[in-house]
Amino acid sequence: MRVSKLFAKPIKKGKTYESKNATFLINGGFIDQVMAGAYTFLPLGTRVLHKIEKIVREEMDKIGQEIFMPAIVPKQLWEDTNRLEKVDVLFKASGANAGSIAKNDTEYILNSTHEEVVTPLAKQFNVSYRDLPFGLYQIQSKFRNEPRAKSGILRGREFRMKDLYSFHASEEDLQRYYHDEAKQGYIETFKRLGLGEDTVIALASGGDFTEDFSHEFQTRCEAGEDMIFYSKQKDIYYNREVTPSKAPLVDTKEEMKDRKDVHGEGVIGVEDLQKHLGITADKSIKTLIYETDKKEIIAVAVRGDYDVNEEKVRKVLGCKTLTLATPETIKKVTGAEVGYAGILGLPAEVRLLVDEALEHVVNFETGANKTDYHTVNANWGRDIEKPEKFYDLKVAKDGDLDPESGEAYEVFKAAEVGNIFPLNTKFSDAIGYMYTAEDGTAKPVYMGCYGIGTSRVMGVLAEKYNDDKGVIWPIQVAPYHVHLVGIDLQDDEIKAKAEKIYEELAKQGIEVLYDDRVESRAGEKFADADMIGIPVRLVVSKRTGEQVEYKLRAEKESSLLNTDEAYTKIKELLKNI
Amino acid sequence: MRVSKLFAKPIKKGKTYESKNATFLINGGFIDQVMAGAYTFLPLGTRVLHKIEKIVREEMDKIGQEIFMPAIVPKQLWEDTNRLEKVDVLFKASGANAGSIAKNDTEYILNSTHEEVVTPLAKQFNVSYRDLPFGLYQIQSKFRNEPRAKSGILRGREFRMKDLYSFHASEEDLQRYYHDEAKQGYIETFKRLGLGEDTVIALASGGDFTEDFSHEFQTRCEAGEDMIFYSKQKDIYYNREVTPSKAPLVDTKEEMKDRKDVHGEGVIGVEDLQKHLGITADKSIKTLIYETDKKEIIAVAVRGDYDVNEEKVRKVLGCKTLTLATPETIKKVTGAEVGYAGILGLPAEVRLLVDEALEHVVNFETGANKTDYHTVNANWGRDIEKPEKFYDLKVAKDGDLDPESGEAYEVFKAAEVGNIFPLNTKFSDAIGYMYTAEDGTAKPVYMGCYGIGTSRVMGVLAEKYNDDKGVIWPIQVAPYHVHLVGIDLQDDEIKAKAEKIYEELAKQGIEVLYDDRVESRAGEKFADADMIGIPVRLVVSKRTGEQVEYKLRAEKESSLLNTDEAYTKIKELLKNI
Repeated sequence: MRVSKLFAKPIKKGKTYESKNATFLINGGFIDQVMAGAYTFLPLGTRVLHKIEKIVREEMDKIGQEIFMPAIVPKQLWEDTNRLEKVDVLFKASGANAGSIAKNDTEYILNSTHEEVVTPLAKQFNVSYRDLPFGLYQIQSKFRNEPRAKSGILRGREFRMKDLYSFHASEEDLQRYYHDEAKQGYIETFKRLGLGEDTVIALASGGDFTEDFSHEFQTRCEAGEDMIFYSKQKDIYYNREVTPSKAPLVDTKEEMKDRKDVHGEGVIGVEDLQKHLGITADKSIKTLIYETDKKEIIAVAVRGDYDVNEEKVRKVLGCKTLTLATPETIKKVTGAEVGYAGILGLPAEVRLLVDEALEHVVNFETGANKTDYHTVNANWGRDIEKPEKFYDLKVAKDGDLDPESGEAYEVFKAAEVGNIFPLNTKFSDAIGYMYTAEDGTAKPVYMGCYGIGTSRVMGVLAEKYNDDKGVIWPIQVAPYHVHLVGIDLQDDEIKAKAEKIYEELAKQGIEVLYDDRVESRAGEKFADADMIGIPVRLVVSKRTGEQVEYKLRAEKESSLLNTDEAYTKIKELLKNI
Repeated sequence: MRVSKLFAKPIKKGKTYESKNATFLINGGFIDQVMAGAYTFLPLGTRVLHKIEKIVREEMDKIGQEIFMPAIVPKQLWEDTNRLEKVDVLFKASGANAGSIAKNDTEYILNSTHEEVVTPLAKQFNVSYRDLPFGLYQIQSKFRNEPRAKSGILRGREFRMKDLYSFHASEEDLQRYYHDEAKQGYIETFKRLGLGEDTVIALASGGDFTEDFSHEFQTRCEAGEDMIFYSKQKDIYYNREVTPSKAPLVDTKEEMKDRKDVHGEGVIGVEDLQKHLGITADKSIKTLIYETDKKEIIAVAVRGDYDVNEEKVRKVLGCKTLTLATPETIKKVTGAEVGYAGILGLPAEVRLLVDEALEHVVNFETGANKTDYHTVNANWGRDIEKPEKFYDLKVAKDGDLDPESGEAYEVFKAAEVGNIFPLNTKFSDAIGYMYTAEDGTAKPVYMGCYGIGTSRVMGVLAEKYNDDKGVIWPIQVAPYHVHLVGIDLQDDEIKAKAEKIYEELAKQGIEVLYDDRVESRAGEKFADADMIGIPVRLVVSKRTGEQVEYKLRAEKESSLLNTDEAYTKIKELLKNI
């Protein structure tokens, strides 16, 4: 490809966006923002995306068969699995104007994920134990009605995704495939994509599909939206949402003070309290009132500097759902408006669960269960019976300890590049997908699902591999292998030499972007090359004589080589793609 | 690929659908219908689609650069080009449930075509004469709110499409690219896809973009929705919508009869009239009342066995738009309810245009301009002045003559597989996309657009290449090159031989589907092979001994060959892909 013909060249003096990937990819001429969360992939970006998807396809072909499902489907499919009202990023599609509606006044669902399509499909063809196990995958655009979408191509309203679904005769076989095939396949995929070293497998929530964990492939990355907690001793990575946590002990040598109720109209929330009462967050108790699916009323107390992890609470209670109580219920059980609930004097029908960080606290503040009042200097034993048992009910935070090992977690930010999920029988149950076992009985099909956001991977690569000038692409996903820069092209001899190298590289199967612009200055060409980030740069100019200047984008030094030496070096780099 | 592992094997005794392509592709295990107009491409179908798209991509890379635009975009883009209310297949996307709407209550457009995205994109980067011309294309899923979608994958609510857009400094350069690059590229593409011989370039309407024609690539095909008229003498193909037509002369030796008005309450339309009045359609006149954008009232008269071609009327009048008059207007100018308009006694402000087929008709029927009445035995000269000029105002039909050559058209049905369209400055004007010419002045950018429906091409291939057993794929788009059928696989020696051939073919870069099923009968395997339609079938069995049975799907005869001979023959077939 000739730079003179390339559509969308780098934008010098472009804007700086909220995320590195947006800045580098937009200014480098890889993507163009059409709106928040929707981008056009420009010629250079389309090439990178295709290379990523080719690697993903090659790896997935080892563990599944490629299909291609429609993005728009009947609403009924989502009603069948009872998810139509539940998935809060779901889009629908319908006629956009009077003429369109007159032709067809129907609403369709624009899939955010494809369990609703693939499960009935599998059921239609494979219903015997002989047909199991099998995997089906696709690479496709997905649609999600995201409220904000500010992280470049890390999060989109429309994005590219590979989604694989597997089907099994038993939970054991699902587990085997899940760990031995899918997880291993993902490890190999991210290795090939250049993310192997920085990508860890973190335990995450199984949602309402399973009590087991799901597994996320998380790449260390400052722009990442996830916080990962690593227990070195156990060698386990946790997504924050499922991290077991023990708060480091806070000094407790204080004497008990006199308890009192303090007036504070409209003083709600930890920050307000700190200002108004002059106490630190670790002296205050946050009390939240919940209702379970069994209609129990639960008060959950965590230290003021923590948040409640509802998933942990749900597991302690063994209930299915947990919802914040309505203002009416709160008023009924605490006697106060929302914002003044506390742990003292709650009625007997309210079950109180207290987080372990509160076990040793003295002189704590808590809502007074009286509108506009907070109680300070409350103490276990004196003002309220000390609970027999404290629980881990909080969202972990940096500094917390692993309760098992007692060691502090290593905490880092990461971007999720893939996830694998044991769905078990959630979807097969919903649509009645059973198989006939060898003994003739009907048994439920176990399923797993496995996603990789291919456009997101491109964003993460841009976040990981860059310097202040732009992205530095790993060669296997670079838009071209070599950026050939011709300088002094007014000189016919040099131009001829550059053209010859361009042809020769192409002949050898090396992908070349050739800066053939005659009028542009050398500085501009080098700046463009840095912004585009192709791993190898070759320069042909008066100065290079019979030779060619060879430079890696990632390195500062360049060297003069004979052309054959340069070709050999490049082929060496291409060997392990 | 092993058939034992293949997801979605052929469906024996499957249903017969309204179109051949649906029947063959669904029963052959290529596609699965999720709803009318939306299909899942199964593993075999996905491979065919990818091969089609690979060929299209290779050809388009010669005349444009690949990009990938989002499917959902802001409404504003469609408002800017004034098409939001006009394109009557347009879908919008919006939150599907309360939770989704609460997160983001915005409506987006789901593109049916991408002029609205590509024109602002081009404007953003290329605004100098130096940047022109250039072409951008993508291969993508498109969405159209089709009322019915019954032709398998020939017409879909969601379908795959390659859309190319070109940008030029002048109309001349657009014409050069349009004819020399795009049209030639399309010819080559359809040749490579196996549709070269049966695909013709037909003139079609330029819509409201241009007074020129657009060009459609139409493949002869019984299931096609278009009717093509071929003038042999001129060697020109016309889409029916733009076919100039002259009706063959009807015998006119009848004497004039007495004109009279006949009562016929509710007798409206040619069929009713034929029954009620006992006349043939070529004796009746269909009169339609229109209004132009200049507020003129026009009466258009065609013979009862023809329909009005509004595009032809619009061109005769030289007006921009033509809309059927409202019932109120019709009542006002004819004095009658809708259905009884005729050419006699119309008020002077109504301009009457009469089709040439009516020039020599005698004793014709026409609406009486009186509710429930028709006039019969009307005649030019006696009952109404004969028009000075007759026009071609009708939709052509089989049997019509080319007015220029006087020869009867050859008429055939065809499926549109591609179209190319001179957009001229329609979209660049709408968004103010000008370029700076060499002399420093701002000039409008000329555009063309060029589409190929890749999933539709797959459907047309299925319609074209088949026999009663199923599709017979051209080797370049076949899911695999060779279907290797193992018979007598209980015999270890034969199994080993089949496995060896399977490996050897793969090693030679030949794509193989290997029927390795031990328990299936030979008849079932052969039937499956015929339904899948891979061009070469190799059979290994006790009977074939050291050799292998070689048979082309398209032929009846098979032959026993040594394996090396078979490989050579297959490679010969693969040479010209």
